[in-house]
Amino acid sequence: MTAHAARRDSLRATARAAGLDAVLVTRLVNVRYLTGFTGSNGVLLVPADGADLLCTDGRYVTQAGRQAPDLELLVDRASAVAATERAARDGHRRLGFESHDVTVDLHRTLSGKVGELVSIGRAVEAQRAVKDDAEIELLRAACAIADRALAELVAAGGLRPGRTEREVGRDLDARMLDLGAHAPSFETIVATGAESAVPHHRPTDRVLAAGDLVKLDFGAEHGGYHSDMTRTLVLGEPAGWQREVYDLVRAAQRAGREALAAGAALRAVDSAARDVVVAAGYGEHFVHGLGHGVGLEIHEAPALSQLSAGTLADRMAVTVEPGVYLAGRGGVRIEDTLVVRDGAEPDLLTTTTKDLVVL
Amino acid sequence: MTAHAARRDSLRATARAAGLDAVLVTRLVNVRYLTGFTGSNGVLLVPADGADLLCTDGRYVTQAGRQAPDLELLVDRASAVAATERAARDGHRRLGFESHDVTVDLHRTLSGKVGELVSIGRAVEAQRAVKDDAEIELLRAACAIADRALAELVAAGGLRPGRTEREVGRDLDARMLDLGAHAPSFETIVATGAESAVPHHRPTDRVLAAGDLVKLDFGAEHGGYHSDMTRTLVLGEPAGWQREVYDLVRAAQRAGREALAAGAALRAVDSAARDVVVAAGYGEHFVHGLGHGVGLEIHEAPALSQLSAGTLADRMAVTVEPGVYLAGRGGVRIEDTLVVRDGAEPDLLTTTTKDLVVL
Repeated sequence: MTAHAARRDSLRATARAAGLDAVLVTRLVNVRYLTGFTGSNGVLLVPADGADLLCTDGRYVTQAGRQAPDLELLVDRASAVAATERAARDGHRRLGFESHDVTVDLHRTLSGKVGELVSIGRAVEAQRAVKDDAEIELLRAACAIADRALAELVAAGGLRPGRTEREVGRDLDARMLDLGAHAPSFETIVATGAESAVPHHRPTDRVLAAGDLVKLDFGAEHGGYHSDMTRTLVLGEPAGWQREVYDLVRAAQRAGREALAAGAALRAVDSAARDVVVAAGYGEHFVHGLGHGVGLEIHEAPALSQLSAGTLADRMAVTVEPGVYLAGRGGVRIEDTLVVRDGAEPDLLTTTTKDLVVL
Repeated sequence: MTAHAARRDSLRATARAAGLDAVLVTRLVNVRYLTGFTGSNGVLLVPADGADLLCTDGRYVTQAGRQAPDLELLVDRASAVAATERAARDGHRRLGFESHDVTVDLHRTLSGKVGELVSIGRAVEAQRAVKDDAEIELLRAACAIADRALAELVAAGGLRPGRTEREVGRDLDARMLDLGAHAPSFETIVATGAESAVPHHRPTDRVLAAGDLVKLDFGAEHGGYHSDMTRTLVLGEPAGWQREVYDLVRAAQRAGREALAAGAALRAVDSAARDVVVAAGYGEHFVHGLGHGVGLEIHEAPALSQLSAGTLADRMAVTVEPGVYLAGRGGVRIEDTLVVRDGAEPDLLTTTTKDLVVL
């Protein structure tokens, strides 16, 4: 059985447990997860009993046949409508749907076509939070590309006074593409000097200068999976406050990583890192959650924050990324992507050193 | 009055005509159109009478103040909920909403908070189809970047046997970024040799060879606006069939452009180009619509196809892009971006030659 078929069987079990005759999956990233299909129009019908069905339009017939050869294919531009009509024709009465994705308009259209529409909530997203072997290997490869791109950038002297943030970002992106990335995971963050205190700064034409902190937050998309890593380096000998903040964030990040364990409360993991920052008197400068799940989306379940309920499970992939941002001076963030392992150390996928690199 | 305020007043008039007390705009690209705000979380409340309100979360307070200084700002992570509660508190009972964007879950949450939710359909998208002066100048600048990037690529010998499709695509993208593009409008299409017969081919490691048709479909995003252009060139002296297909597509594209006029039926514009292809016996090889609106989205209203109802209006920006695709041999597409003008020739924004370029 393929990994995709196994994932669909898991959703099928959820559908049966909820007393549904079938589930209609409309959210594209969930369709990709369950089938491998990457077109921009596609829905999946998973019956409690019977064969699964992929519906897309004429543009994607060849691609769907190649990416999801084990699925029956229905070709119709109005894919959600056609799949729902097919479900009704096949005798399905209670149809599960993704109420966080289906719009009011689409719901109205589908309502008349089948006995009953029942929300399955974020059932597929919950399933996606726990990665299978194939997913972990894709994440590992994506992280390796990012690690290597940064190593090459540093080795080539790409981080030096006189270059702009924009030039550095494009250099890093180009190296990831050269190493086989499909694309950067998101718009690469290069934040230097005082701008390093802005958590999600976009690269500008600011010129790197001696004494700058250089915060790089970037990742590679590979096979649909996203890596996510932040490193903060310094140009020239660090000032006392720079080293102090760096050492603090590094200690907090280590505490966060060490708290990753199957069964750990999500909130407690955030606290493990946050307590270190708070105890040092910098709590108000750590202005975001500790991390997030990562996979087919750059941000997905679970969130590691004070607002999170729930616990970690074996094989969840998450980032751990505390930061301390001093407005007008500079900031430090250190971020890894890791996989939680039952009864073992988490699997560290981003392997670039976390020692302070002085350029 | 700013362009954004004028756009909101136009929506306000729509709201009044529909007897609504206020409109809640949730679709992000529509919020951008009406305010200039580009954050990833934001909704806009436009009352029939009273001051407009932008709601976003804490990450975007500084940015919202800079991008939309004339708007009252409400800071709340659950932006749609907070704006709806505010509307109710301000005495609004009939609240317009975007039923093609609001999910079933969000609708359920909002329903209890205000008197009545009334769909405004795609009112903002309909407004966006007609461009104002500021938008046309941004489109013109985006198209100029793409024109110049292609000219530089050709002048630098960037299209030559031995390079891969992927290298060509990255070269073109880099040139657009160097010329000030924020990003490519979409994943640049470089389709060569027999692959040029695939309408939306993604660049591969296929090596360009003498005799190849080289189809380039690309654009630049600038200030949020997207250019879109396709040119098909040939490496070395064209074969008879290549020149024949090229001349046919060029004639069809000219017929399509000449049919662009305020008041023309969308379907008739498609027919003007399609009839040329059909008359030459290649109708079955022109497998998509003639064109689409372009602006803040790369594909937006209106569609130029046999399925379209409605007519063109002054200041609509559209592509005209017929193609003929001969499976296993090769294909030609020629595409411009133009602005429809009342009682005048359309304004051609992509100015690269449509003579067959032999490299």
